[in-house]
Amino acid sequence: MKTVAVFSGGLDSTVLLHHLRESGDELLSLSIDYGQRHRRELDHAREIAGRLGIEWQLADLSHIRSLLAGSSQTSPDVPVPHGHYAESSMKQTVVPNRNMIMIAIAAGWAISRRYDRVAYGAHAGDHTIYPDCRPQFVDALRGALSLADWNSVDLFCPFIGMSKADIVRRGASLGVDFASTWSCYEGGELHCGRCGTCFERREAFDQAGIGDPTHYQSNAMTAAQS
Amino acid sequence: MKTVAVFSGGLDSTVLLHHLRESGDELLSLSIDYGQRHRRELDHAREIAGRLGIEWQLADLSHIRSLLAGSSQTSPDVPVPHGHYAESSMKQTVVPNRNMIMIAIAAGWAISRRYDRVAYGAHAGDHTIYPDCRPQFVDALRGALSLADWNSVDLFCPFIGMSKADIVRRGASLGVDFASTWSCYEGGELHCGRCGTCFERREAFDQAGIGDPTHYQSNAMTAAQS
Repeated sequence: MKTVAVFSGGLDSTVLLHHLRESGDELLSLSIDYGQRHRRELDHAREIAGRLGIEWQLADLSHIRSLLAGSSQTSPDVPVPHGHYAESSMKQTVVPNRNMIMIAIAAGWAISRRYDRVAYGAHAGDHTIYPDCRPQFVDALRGALSLADWNSVDLFCPFIGMSKADIVRRGASLGVDFASTWSCYEGGELHCGRCGTCFERREAFDQAGIGDPTHYQSNAMTAAQS
Repeated sequence: MKTVAVFSGGLDSTVLLHHLRESGDELLSLSIDYGQRHRRELDHAREIAGRLGIEWQLADLSHIRSLLAGSSQTSPDVPVPHGHYAESSMKQTVVPNRNMIMIAIAAGWAISRRYDRVAYGAHAGDHTIYPDCRPQFVDALRGALSLADWNSVDLFCPFIGMSKADIVRRGASLGVDFASTWSCYEGGELHCGRCGTCFERREAFDQAGIGDPTHYQSNAMTAAQS
């Protein structure tokens, strides 16, 4: 298969890239700058794709940030919520329609390059907070994508039924260098250890029983609640 | 209803804006710069929205043009085809996944502003050339949009079953200033009169039995075949 992978430089999509590569896919990787709070994950994405020898492009949508206001990721006045990623406060990290925008652009690139499908790394742990990571959304968007061009493009989400701990296990079996990935919603030198994604990342390694190589600024799991 | 209208400054979407305004909708209008061949239609869009007193935003996606290569609208080396808009050569004007990208961004804005729906002006005359104007695509994307956020966003295409001549008639009944709209794929001082959209525009006025106020560079309908 020829696959365009939506690739943020985070843990899930880095495992996704390795997973697809192991399956023998011909790959393109696409990161999106939607004016997010910081560009750290984009730097990680470029570096990881470079190391894997996979063509990488950055779609610069930073100019539309004001249209997607209201999220902590696009509005500087909305703080990044601290605590467990399943708390309702985490909904303020939702960027309006982000996944459809990213997938639509990845599909445009796939059509232009005559690729078969778009892959992205939504997983079961995202469903509570992110409406556009739910299986029913993926199924509906897959239907629309199959009709968007005279040559059909598929939408592939191999992790949709997996937990983040499952993804960590899969990544470990593929030899992923987890330390090279970036999850944190804050843009500091180290992962903050207190935002929802840091909490989720740390918990996933813990649940998977795999050593977490990440250096967190705040190291105690309980500190994430403060 | 509160509606975000995808608005190119062309004939169809200008009639759409008037149609929605007459229905009493609260409106936002969005134009997309996807790196198209010229910006003339965007200037027209800004002016028309300004005259109607409707908030207008331009989503600048010109940086992703290279990802959507292969169309005469995004690749300078692909010429604008001349002739009838139903000819297969017109397929080279299709920008990969353009409508899904535009609608996805409009929906992001709708979610951010707590609007109910996105409207766009696809019509029956588009179905032969543009896969992403077909009713089955619209229905599938409507399904995905209804799931993309915790608050559902609808997709409204009131012209999907109408011909462009029907749209001209509807516009005339609404008092649309057709001369202020721009259709031509070329970016000259006047509408070229030879590209597919010029041909379609002229034919629509003719079929509707309504005087066409457009000044074309090439005026004979037969010249459009050369």
